[in-house]
Amino acid sequence: MKLVQHPAEMTELATLWRDEGRTIALVPTMGSFHAGHLALMRQARQLSDQVVVSLFVNPIQFGPGEDLATYPCDLQKDMHLAASVGVDVLYAPLAADMYPPGFQTTIRVAELGKGLCGASRPGHFDGVCTVVMKLFQQASPHLAIFGEKDFQQLAVIRRMARDLDLPVAIIAHPTVREKSGLAMSSRNSYLQEEEIEQALCLYRAICFAREMVKASTVPLVAAEVCSKIIKNIQSTPGCDVEYVEIVDADSLKSCETVNKNSRLIMAVRVNRKVRLIDNAGLVEL
Amino acid sequence: MKLVQHPAEMTELATLWRDEGRTIALVPTMGSFHAGHLALMRQARQLSDQVVVSLFVNPIQFGPGEDLATYPCDLQKDMHLAASVGVDVLYAPLAADMYPPGFQTTIRVAELGKGLCGASRPGHFDGVCTVVMKLFQQASPHLAIFGEKDFQQLAVIRRMARDLDLPVAIIAHPTVREKSGLAMSSRNSYLQEEEIEQALCLYRAICFAREMVKASTVPLVAAEVCSKIIKNIQSTPGCDVEYVEIVDADSLKSCETVNKNSRLIMAVRVNRKVRLIDNAGLVEL
Repeated sequence: MKLVQHPAEMTELATLWRDEGRTIALVPTMGSFHAGHLALMRQARQLSDQVVVSLFVNPIQFGPGEDLATYPCDLQKDMHLAASVGVDVLYAPLAADMYPPGFQTTIRVAELGKGLCGASRPGHFDGVCTVVMKLFQQASPHLAIFGEKDFQQLAVIRRMARDLDLPVAIIAHPTVREKSGLAMSSRNSYLQEEEIEQALCLYRAICFAREMVKASTVPLVAAEVCSKIIKNIQSTPGCDVEYVEIVDADSLKSCETVNKNSRLIMAVRVNRKVRLIDNAGLVEL
Repeated sequence: MKLVQHPAEMTELATLWRDEGRTIALVPTMGSFHAGHLALMRQARQLSDQVVVSLFVNPIQFGPGEDLATYPCDLQKDMHLAASVGVDVLYAPLAADMYPPGFQTTIRVAELGKGLCGASRPGHFDGVCTVVMKLFQQASPHLAIFGEKDFQQLAVIRRMARDLDLPVAIIAHPTVREKSGLAMSSRNSYLQEEEIEQALCLYRAICFAREMVKASTVPLVAAEVCSKIIKNIQSTPGCDVEYVEIVDADSLKSCETVNKNSRLIMAVRVNRKVRLIDNAGLVEL
């Protein structure tokens, strides 16, 4: 596996592959790989000739007071893990090369980026769109794989790709979970042992909502499901709900009743410091 | 020459050309071709294997109260003219195909798009960037040619291409002028005969400023040159200055003194209805 740091070198490699008729898959990440990342990489490996994994802790998608400075990082370990699943290039550009002096361009997906995480993280999805566009231009992938764990991000990127006619297939990979049900996340490393137990309130909410849907013979009122979940989570010591919503999986607009395209989507803060998100469809298809 | 209307067809053609190793030049236009457009097309013809001219009166770059509805349009004539200079494809997509329901993505170049025309046309350059990005993705050009007449647009597009790592060379074509000196513009067709005479105040300002620079042995104070020009233009019956500035050609920031990289840049309204722009370097290189 090759480590590439400079954008120009990445583009040169991608152009060479393209000229040889080889297909390219990109897995954009912020590093600190866990089994979820590795699952995306394995899927990329199956789907294309060349696999590029980008590793870039993108400063412009972090707000003031967020965890940019403390975001976990271990390049040596990440290189080892990426190589172990057959990645061809680990592309880890420097922020100074991604955003040189004078940089001033932003991409915004207006509606989809507004609510949910966008409400508490203004500008977050602008930063995500902008960096993903840059990575697409630099690595020239035929397809790019994103985890469903960041469901709003996936919807925003899909919309950007469609709206701007990007010649990149956006592929969703299901959320990978710990045995306990906790969605894998690099930010789980912030959790102390007893906090991991608290963090399970998210997965429990998913199971609870699915049971409710299963048990009901009529379509459930989404707001009622949400307020039950909020009550459950708030009763977990140290857990604060940022949002719990049931939305249409495509438009991310609130559902009145739970249907096949509904998605339960949540953000919770554990002990006021670690912000965790999770989401799931509620109706078995 | 082929007329292409559907984005998917344009992309298919471009992919075919790329696969054959052919280079593609794009000349983005809003139609109503004059000798300025044709000069850009001829340059494109010289620089690449395939020449695509896009013709799209882009609704999202017009503000309320602007001339979207009345913008001149003659497809038959434009087809004839484009064919006469060896254009391969005239690409004229429909607004409904460019911006289908649910479209919500915008590209903004923050600083460069703010002042000058951006001040009186909020959102204008966002619309320009967004459509140019779409055209780039659809037609996959190796190079794209823009007229210097729209100098701020050129600077904004250059910045977008650099910031987002677009693999497209942005080429500037000098402003083409009538014998009288009037910069060619589709909007000149709005002018009555006597208004054409009034519109010459722009070109006269350029000549005046150049003479001042030539005659001076010390660097001129930009603000003083501008206020003389404003006085001259305001004394032309029916002419109202929207802005007259001398800016750095790259940053578009105001110059204190006139230097080799200074650009005189102006917007004037003739008889309160026709808005005209012009610009020029002031120091002979």
